[in-house]
Amino acid sequence: MGMAKTMIEEKLREECGIFGCSLTTDEAVGITYNSLLALQHRGQEGAGIAVVDGGKIHSHKDVGLVSEVFSKKFFKKMPAGRIAVGHARYSTTGGNVYENCGPFTTEYLTGRIATAHNGNITNAQELRHKLETQGLSFNSTSDSEVISSLLAFYITRADNAFEGLVMAANDLEGAFSLVIASSDNTLVAIRDPHGYRPLCIGRSEFGFAVASESCALEACGFEFIRDVLPGEVIIAENGKLIKQGVKLNMTKEGSGLCIFEYVYFARPDSIIDGLSVYEARYSMGMILAKEYPVLADIVCGVPDSGLDAAHGYSEGSGLPLVPGFVKNRYIGRSFIYPTQSQRDDAVRLKLNPLTASVKDKRIVLVDDSVVRGTTCEKIVRSLKKAGAKEVHLRISSPPFRFSCHYGTDVDSAENLIANKMSLDEVRQKTGADSLGYISIEGLKKACEKCTLSFCTECFTGNLAHSLPSKHIFE
Amino acid sequence: MGMAKTMIEEKLREECGIFGCSLTTDEAVGITYNSLLALQHRGQEGAGIAVVDGGKIHSHKDVGLVSEVFSKKFFKKMPAGRIAVGHARYSTTGGNVYENCGPFTTEYLTGRIATAHNGNITNAQELRHKLETQGLSFNSTSDSEVISSLLAFYITRADNAFEGLVMAANDLEGAFSLVIASSDNTLVAIRDPHGYRPLCIGRSEFGFAVASESCALEACGFEFIRDVLPGEVIIAENGKLIKQGVKLNMTKEGSGLCIFEYVYFARPDSIIDGLSVYEARYSMGMILAKEYPVLADIVCGVPDSGLDAAHGYSEGSGLPLVPGFVKNRYIGRSFIYPTQSQRDDAVRLKLNPLTASVKDKRIVLVDDSVVRGTTCEKIVRSLKKAGAKEVHLRISSPPFRFSCHYGTDVDSAENLIANKMSLDEVRQKTGADSLGYISIEGLKKACEKCTLSFCTECFTGNLAHSLPSKHIFE
Amino acid sequence: MGMAKTMIEEKLREECGIFGCSLTTDEAVGITYNSLLALQHRGQEGAGIAVVDGGKIHSHKDVGLVSEVFSKKFFKKMPAGRIAVGHARYSTTGGNVYENCGPFTTEYLTGRIATAHNGNITNAQELRHKLETQGLSFNSTSDSEVISSLLAFYITRADNAFEGLVMAANDLEGAFSLVIASSDNTLVAIRDPHGYRPLCIGRSEFGFAVASESCALEACGFEFIRDVLPGEVIIAENGKLIKQGVKLNMTKEGSGLCIFEYVYFARPDSIIDGLSVYEARYSMGMILAKEYPVLADIVCGVPDSGLDAAHGYSEGSGLPLVPGFVKNRYIGRSFIYPTQSQRDDAVRLKLNPLTASVKDKRIVLVDDSVVRGTTCEKIVRSLKKAGAKEVHLRISSPPFRFSCHYGTDVDSAENLIANKMSLDEVRQKTGADSLGYISIEGLKKACEKCTLSFCTECFTGNLAHSLPSKHIFE
Amino acid sequence: MGMAKTMIEEKLREECGIFGCSLTTDEAVGITYNSLLALQHRGQEGAGIAVVDGGKIHSHKDVGLVSEVFSKKFFKKMPAGRIAVGHARYSTTGGNVYENCGPFTTEYLTGRIATAHNGNITNAQELRHKLETQGLSFNSTSDSEVISSLLAFYITRADNAFEGLVMAANDLEGAFSLVIASSDNTLVAIRDPHGYRPLCIGRSEFGFAVASESCALEACGFEFIRDVLPGEVIIAENGKLIKQGVKLNMTKEGSGLCIFEYVYFARPDSIIDGLSVYEARYSMGMILAKEYPVLADIVCGVPDSGLDAAHGYSEGSGLPLVPGFVKNRYIGRSFIYPTQSQRDDAVRLKLNPLTASVKDKRIVLVDDSVVRGTTCEKIVRSLKKAGAKEVHLRISSPPFRFSCHYGTDVDSAENLIANKMSLDEVRQKTGADSLGYISIEGLKKACEKCTLSFCTECFTGNLAHSLPSKHIFE
Repeated sequence: MGMAKTMIEEKLREECGIFGCSLTTDEAVGITYNSLLALQHRGQEGAGIAVVDGGKIHSHKDVGLVSEVFSKKFFKKMPAGRIAVGHARYSTTGGNVYENCGPFTTEYLTGRIATAHNGNITNAQELRHKLETQGLSFNSTSDSEVISSLLAFYITRADNAFEGLVMAANDLEGAFSLVIASSDNTLVAIRDPHGYRPLCIGRSEFGFAVASESCALEACGFEFIRDVLPGEVIIAENGKLIKQGVKLNMTKEGSGLCIFEYVYFARPDSIIDGLSVYEARYSMGMILAKEYPVLADIVCGVPDSGLDAAHGYSEGSGLPLVPGFVKNRYIGRSFIYPTQSQRDDAVRLKLNPLTASVKDKRIVLVDDSVVRGTTCEKIVRSLKKAGAKEVHLRISSPPFRFSCHYGTDVDSAENLIANKMSLDEVRQKTGADSLGYISIEGLKKACEKCTLSFCTECFTGNLAHSLPSKHIFE
Repeated sequence: MGMAKTMIEEKLREECGIFGCSLTTDEAVGITYNSLLALQHRGQEGAGIAVVDGGKIHSHKDVGLVSEVFSKKFFKKMPAGRIAVGHARYSTTGGNVYENCGPFTTEYLTGRIATAHNGNITNAQELRHKLETQGLSFNSTSDSEVISSLLAFYITRADNAFEGLVMAANDLEGAFSLVIASSDNTLVAIRDPHGYRPLCIGRSEFGFAVASESCALEACGFEFIRDVLPGEVIIAENGKLIKQGVKLNMTKEGSGLCIFEYVYFARPDSIIDGLSVYEARYSMGMILAKEYPVLADIVCGVPDSGLDAAHGYSEGSGLPLVPGFVKNRYIGRSFIYPTQSQRDDAVRLKLNPLTASVKDKRIVLVDDSVVRGTTCEKIVRSLKKAGAKEVHLRISSPPFRFSCHYGTDVDSAENLIANKMSLDEVRQKTGADSLGYISIEGLKKACEKCTLSFCTECFTGNLAHSLPSKHIFE
Repeated sequence: MGMAKTMIEEKLREECGIFGCSLTTDEAVGITYNSLLALQHRGQEGAGIAVVDGGKIHSHKDVGLVSEVFSKKFFKKMPAGRIAVGHARYSTTGGNVYENCGPFTTEYLTGRIATAHNGNITNAQELRHKLETQGLSFNSTSDSEVISSLLAFYITRADNAFEGLVMAANDLEGAFSLVIASSDNTLVAIRDPHGYRPLCIGRSEFGFAVASESCALEACGFEFIRDVLPGEVIIAENGKLIKQGVKLNMTKEGSGLCIFEYVYFARPDSIIDGLSVYEARYSMGMILAKEYPVLADIVCGVPDSGLDAAHGYSEGSGLPLVPGFVKNRYIGRSFIYPTQSQRDDAVRLKLNPLTASVKDKRIVLVDDSVVRGTTCEKIVRSLKKAGAKEVHLRISSPPFRFSCHYGTDVDSAENLIANKMSLDEVRQKTGADSLGYISIEGLKKACEKCTLSFCTECFTGNLAHSLPSKHIFE
Repeated sequence: MGMAKTMIEEKLREECGIFGCSLTTDEAVGITYNSLLALQHRGQEGAGIAVVDGGKIHSHKDVGLVSEVFSKKFFKKMPAGRIAVGHARYSTTGGNVYENCGPFTTEYLTGRIATAHNGNITNAQELRHKLETQGLSFNSTSDSEVISSLLAFYITRADNAFEGLVMAANDLEGAFSLVIASSDNTLVAIRDPHGYRPLCIGRSEFGFAVASESCALEACGFEFIRDVLPGEVIIAENGKLIKQGVKLNMTKEGSGLCIFEYVYFARPDSIIDGLSVYEARYSMGMILAKEYPVLADIVCGVPDSGLDAAHGYSEGSGLPLVPGFVKNRYIGRSFIYPTQSQRDDAVRLKLNPLTASVKDKRIVLVDDSVVRGTTCEKIVRSLKKAGAKEVHLRISSPPFRFSCHYGTDVDSAENLIANKMSLDEVRQKTGADSLGYISIEGLKKACEKCTLSFCTECFTGNLAHSLPSKHIFE
């Protein structure tokens, strides 16, 4: 929707899912489609697939869920392909338009590329301006167009496409995991030097794949091999990894992997940089139980985001884990009619307390985070209404205080409840009998098996870490 | 694709959900819409609402999910109303057409009614023929048209509408829970003498409601009062119950409440005929642990249908309950592309083992039932592939051997695996290291707090019980 | 916007179109679909087809244009069939819902029928009540359900289906052309004794067809044979007419064929009851030229409804016929944005004067009728703005004064401009320099080749004619 | 089905329609929408509107008809605006995708523009390559992206936007009429030096507009002022023309206005470069009557494209003009079911002979062109079947022999019947009793009031004319 959205979109915090594969069989499009189903939790606003076929790139993308964007008819129209990339996009209100959907397909002097991107380029405006001074122009407000124009710009000037891609990537600042399919039949994956966003590698007897999360590899029949390292560039061709360990310029300061991947974004069955997401959450619950013990009867998690940490809290506290709610799986984004009788209860249509479990109980209620506090308040109230004697709220992330520069879509800082109220005021607002957030140290400890250091900017406001990662190329 | 299809089909044993309300405020349509969202798990093929307004009945219905059938626009077009009935419909293969959606609206000599129906009339053909000999004709193949024509036929001949309804209901055989809104501003609820299908009553400061399950009452701000009794007719007017305990003719032989409501159909947060569905499932797991103990490391439930029984098994066995899978919440009925690499793994797109939990473990895997066995087989295999050492399958219902006459859509008897194979053959097919089904006695014991006797025809083939219920009107 | 709306509404005086065929080849559904495309001008609100197959009747219908209701997919799902009926429906305000679309399919004791109906039953309420006293009930507000229930009611009581149909038809009063496909593989066509609505017969080497208008026969490859006579019942089987000339009870008083079929409804290439519609309109223009001559330069017709009469006026007056407007074929029912600059000109988006033709000319402008006068006013004004010196309005029907009891949807009598204003006031309102309506005698003379007498109620308010038709069975 | 397809394709020789306005009131979007309705005949594959608002450009576009692309909802979302451009697009085979829809919105170093384009750039590939060597890349295959990138490229290098636009336009070769809305609140219109495609200027009390055809100006309440001259650049601001007569480099050789605008593309109520399209067609018919007289009874035009020339033929020959066909206005692009009975007659569903007019007549049948000849053949045959004694085909354009380089989508040269058959063979194929095409000289004579010379490449294959136009700037 044109330029008008620029100002809004610049503040977009997207969390996307990306995938790419290079196969020896003609089913790249089908596998990429399946992978997007497995990555849908990372982005539900748009989806796209681009496939290389005889030097051309065919692409189909649109706003909507993966299953809405792609019909069976689509598979008949598109070449099946051996190299494809896919993108599942998340965007906040207002910016959800066709032009901003990925992958981005670009033609330049010597070829064509399709680029899928997860992250947030912090110098996108600067790069845009730099390219515009060269006479380039832009047709959308998407950072992805900046990235793909930059890639094309350097490829045109470089000795070969790969060299150009590396030069371009060295110009990018911020968070970026990229998967690029090229008309010369190569698939390139790049992860930024700080490793803000995950990216991992898999293989099967039929070829090679990269994905935002290992759950997508498994769901598509690939064996998870390893993560792409921060600052690493890899190339696959004909279903095989032909080059790896190429390093981007590592001098920039920065932090590391977004710790919110473990807290909330990723699927529990994914393993990111050496650490199982499920185990991380379980440990957060264990540690939370040590940091904020309480005399109670049962532990309940808020479905689905608080369930794994609740499990850990149960183990850490010795209190039994009990299902506290039934979540309505059919509501999704459905309209709920606002009725008088339900004035305070609409949340029960989505999340109904399981009276049989919670009545007359002192409950430890575990969730992953508190943003504005309004939902928390309704959930606590519904438990009390269902007969809970006490509700002790335990949160598996520290208070959210700062907005994110690297792609997470959080509310503006002034709306974050942790910035407006003291801990006890938050407790009072939510109606909980006690409230405990995991400490930053506790959270880091829960994630200590991760091979990377972390970005915890949203909790601390502190961006700078001296070293981008513990893991260095030889 | 085939796989995914099978998986869905194997679980398609839904029922219809019905709701009706009589209010003192003008929001009957809005509340009925919300109630259908809460009853969507009982029927996902069609939805409809009919509202009484000034002696007329307005109705809107169509095939699709509740959120697809009703848009915000709809609420502007329809009168808000004080009396409405709603229907969420499950239909068997082939018959999913507009004409068969409920509620059914009928005009007769002296008025109009809208009828929502859950169940299966076993003498529908006979009644149809009987009415046709009177010169009546039918515009659809739906049993609902038979019911509503029969109701209208008797009302026309009776002294008053209520008497006609009772006369008509006495002609019906089989399973029926009915909610009827009448143009004379009454709401009538009828439950068949055996109480095959659930039906319960709620009230709020704004009025009165009946629903298939108590979860819908709670979700819409009504307090659950009691179940409609088997063979009971009740009437509400102006938001109040004005007549109750009217008895249908109870002489017919038959069984009782469909025990599969506890095993699978109902939502765990519902309470049906005195028994919490969650507690029933938990007890099934407890009893299963006693009936089929096994030396193992952990207990996992198949999401979502096996989770509560797994909880009980864990309690009964002392083995820790661990999440064994991550279920993809976005797939629903999406097309899955059939790829070579995923030949055996498409189920993992829907249900991926949580390797961190299951690797190197001896697992007790709990599910609610086995129909054809193909999904079971894939799930067991995926656990083994994820590193499980042993998988012991425990099923919280007895083997499924007979098809149902009362409205449950199960596979034809010859497709039911329990009819074609011995227990050990089934175990071998599924790849499990051991297999145990709960006994019928065990299942009944798990449900003993229920105030009704049960229909267990699908396990025993035996329809006849001497008394329709333990509960008799005074 | 308002304007555009008005313009459309003023012309919405459509009828329904019906069709049926009995073939020796399996393409009844395809041919019926094509026929509905050819009859679309008679009804654009809904469409449906019902086909007989092995004793069953399959039907598909919905609101919308023929091309919207039927997709290619539809043809794969439905049996191709040898006997089918189709319906293109026009509905009055408010009633455009699925339930009211035709054909109406009905099952009774001994078989099934599908009925397509064009007309208006004047005793529908009475019949409805009569059937309800027999215990029958109705699921829609459609007259079609009354008709089909009545047919079924009598068939059940008669010795055979045909006899029942005739008995039922003798109970109907008002306007009705009916085409009925029966599960016993017969196709029955019935036209009411007054012949209010047209119905004609065609045959090809592949079978037999009946249609509202001969243009549909020709468009589908059938040769036009003759009209169904007023009060005649015919039966076809296996592609052949097996019985004809069966007479309905002719004692009821009434008028004859709706003369508006010639004025406006029918397509000019149809021949109805012996008279070519084109020729009728041409003669109206000729006669109008004699009745209301004027000194002018050119004759223009309002596209498309006034073009043929304009042709006749040109011939009758000796003035040259010139295209006065270009009609935008793409607007249809599109929304037109109401702008300041177009305050008075929105009609020009639909109908733009051809300045090259009309500038500095004294124009005779011919249209078929004036309802509210607002569109007329805009058209005259646009001609003047384009430079016309004088505009003399000539109308090929007498002033519209009475609403219709036989199915034509005209405005309520109080909105009809001819009821509110004198001839000169109407002229002034429209801005025309002179105004002339054809006389009733003139109109009848233009149609004198028609073999039937006419209903001219909407001009005279006089319903009664002593004889229903000039044409009587032997 | 095949027939219907052929029929449509044979006539698919549309162009694009473009519009732009600069107003003093906030209704630029609404007026542009209306203008696209009026220009829909020039392009039915896609539509778009871009509006300038506070230095930003908002745009909405999609594949489909104008009425499908824009809903009422759209008008609430978009700023009403004072400057907007619109595009109704015709696309050649295969390329009908979102990315290719106009207008094209581009951001460059110092601003933003939205460009609507009608025509065909013959050096697009060359320019694309030239820009790519500068490091530019492209996201679509559309020439419009090349144009807008080129415009942006030069603007970035020029002293001001206007100068850059002129420089860029001087690089373009081929046919181009451009309307450009700029974020600095100017509206620029450019017509190529040969004036291949029309472009005209209008004004109202509310502002200024440019449009492909004058019919769009009139339909939107603007008074037609004059055509944009070949090679002229004009600028409007705040509803007023502030600069005109700026000349593009005129040294390139070339022909002039596409004569097919008069023959077929334009609407008869448009006036292009001094000549009324209706009058041009009328004259073509007059001249054709002189060039190819024949002894006959009546003249008929093929609706709608042959009607105006038929009028002229009637005048020229003295033979009466008679409506020969009724065109079905509801079929459009609807699927027609291919039936046995209609093997040779499917065309009659779209165009049915008016038997009353044509029976026993010797007919002169006038159409605008013959492409493959298959439709002609069907039409002639249907006339004969309806009883025509003789059919004499007269074509108001010379034989079509060459494909077009300037944007008209005609069939490939080898499919053009005039390249494969002699005149008599064509006559035989069509079944006509005689066949006459207007001569090139005759056609030019019919259009002699046009102020420009013509491109007649499709008839002659000869591109070069020494002077681009008769009309030169001072």
